Amino acid sequence: MTAIRISGKDISADVRAKVAAEVAKLPVKPCLAVILVGEDPASEVYVRGKLKDTEEAGMISVHHRLPATATQAEVEDLIAGLNGDDNVDGILLQLPLPKGLDADAAIERIDPSKDVDGLTEVSAGRLSLGKPGLRSCTPSGCVIMAKRALGNDLSGKHVVVIGRSILVGKPAALLFLAENCTVTIAHSRTKDLPAVCREADILVPAVGRPQMVKGDWLKPGAMVIDVGINRIDAPEKGEGKTRLVGDADFESCADVAGYITPVPGGVGLMTRACLLVNTLYAACARRGWQAPEIG
Amino acid sequence: MTAIRISGKDISADVRAKVAAEVAKLPVKPCLAVILVGEDPASEVYVRGKLKDTEEAGMISVHHRLPATATQAEVEDLIAGLNGDDNVDGILLQLPLPKGLDADAAIERIDPSKDVDGLTEVSAGRLSLGKPGLRSCTPSGCVIMAKRALGNDLSGKHVVVIGRSILVGKPAALLFLAENCTVTIAHSRTKDLPAVCREADILVPAVGRPQMVKGDWLKPGAMVIDVGINRIDAPEKGEGKTRLVGDADFESCADVAGYITPVPGGVGLMTRACLLVNTLYAACARRGWQAPEIG
Repeated sequence: MTAIRISGKDISADVRAKVAAEVAKLPVKPCLAVILVGEDPASEVYVRGKLKDTEEAGMISVHHRLPATATQAEVEDLIAGLNGDDNVDGILLQLPLPKGLDADAAIERIDPSKDVDGLTEVSAGRLSLGKPGLRSCTPSGCVIMAKRALGNDLSGKHVVVIGRSILVGKPAALLFLAENCTVTIAHSRTKDLPAVCREADILVPAVGRPQMVKGDWLKPGAMVIDVGINRIDAPEKGEGKTRLVGDADFESCADVAGYITPVPGGVGLMTRACLLVNTLYAACARRGWQAPEIG
Repeated sequence: MTAIRISGKDISADVRAKVAAEVAKLPVKPCLAVILVGEDPASEVYVRGKLKDTEEAGMISVHHRLPATATQAEVEDLIAGLNGDDNVDGILLQLPLPKGLDADAAIERIDPSKDVDGLTEVSAGRLSLGKPGLRSCTPSGCVIMAKRALGNDLSGKHVVVIGRSILVGKPAALLFLAENCTVTIAHSRTKDLPAVCREADILVPAVGRPQMVKGDWLKPGAMVIDVGINRIDAPEKGEGKTRLVGDADFESCADVAGYITPVPGGVGLMTRACLLVNTLYAACARRGWQAPEIG
């Protein structure tokens, strides 16, 4: 292993501390409202984590629960109420929704000024148009990690994003473009993907294919920001055991890359931290306060 | 010259004929409202052209004029009135606006369902999110030209867009991505731009630099879709004479490319044709009619 390990644990802790320091200066505590519909166990865990993070950063969190039997109108009415509640700065609708509910339609009801997940059409449009707005958390976390490793000026770096999802691939491409990077978006239809990846100064695999990216796909010294989080069998840990791996094959990539983010302990922690950044930004923008830049 | 010349004249005429044929089948003629503020001579010419195109396609055009002294509120009130007018399917605000007016704010007043220029935050967001919506005209024209030259399936083609403007570069990248192309966005900060361009199966220069792209920047057989329209001195035509050229050096590029669009007579004509397509699409979507696919 020659690559420097870029720890999501350290960087996210630093980002969270910065958010907390800024929050402490504010006259009012920013408030995040989290909506959980139904009782999906994984979603319960995520929501608890988000609520805890928010409180630890000195912000207020409010948990709204609806039963799995909630109607579309009930979900949207709750969102409309939170839009109208001047005390609420951010609204997060935990996904997925129970079957039968239309997540897209519900998300579109969120006031873009409170859209801390950056998922609405208006938020996506503002990103594409280069206007101020709330950006998706995972790609924002990727940019912060790149800057911590390579310095704040990413101009001219060639970023190759693998995957074109609306949650990661496309917003990551647009965010790195805004940092003056040359950006390539590759995906399942890309021809000779390894050759395309070897052009990258920064490679961002975000496809959900365990250990797909191998060391010989990398330009020596490149940075790998691994967005994938995949659970695979781990018989070496005992029968029926599993472990988490990224979209990059850590061992072989770490021998070629200059910098690499681990899984777990990498981008995932940044996603959580960036939700706090967005809640702070939303509060500042809504209340007319100068927003600090946290990166 | 070995490249096949892809004529915007021929393709746009075909697109316009298809729009006219579809319009003729509709129970109501689609209606485009064009707003011109002030008396910019170039804008007058463009608006006249758009009105003429619309009428020739069998659609209704309504020209709204405001004096250069119009206030922001007057412009936005006019747009609000057109939003509320059920007979109006498309609203086009001719740019630039006279000094002192806020074009962005005015554009944001346009109902996205009538945003035939595809310029609102919601339209940009829908493109990025892969949702149905109205797309910018120039990049749509580029995709149509690519399909006419290379066939409808552009999967796996490597598209390099030079320029990251909100009018062309970014939406073109997203549109080609939706066609399953691998997409690179290059720009002024890109390192070794010629080498990046040589990766392209389809090169889309959109920067406004006359004849910047040279033949030796191309992979042999590549397609060049030249978005640039630049006026340069043409002393060979007589003292003080000028001529239009693209961002590609036509002579040297045509010796290497497989396909090339000329300037003038290329993408510019497609932009005009795609405004008609968008007006038709807007009318169908608003009125609940099945929209034909015109490409």
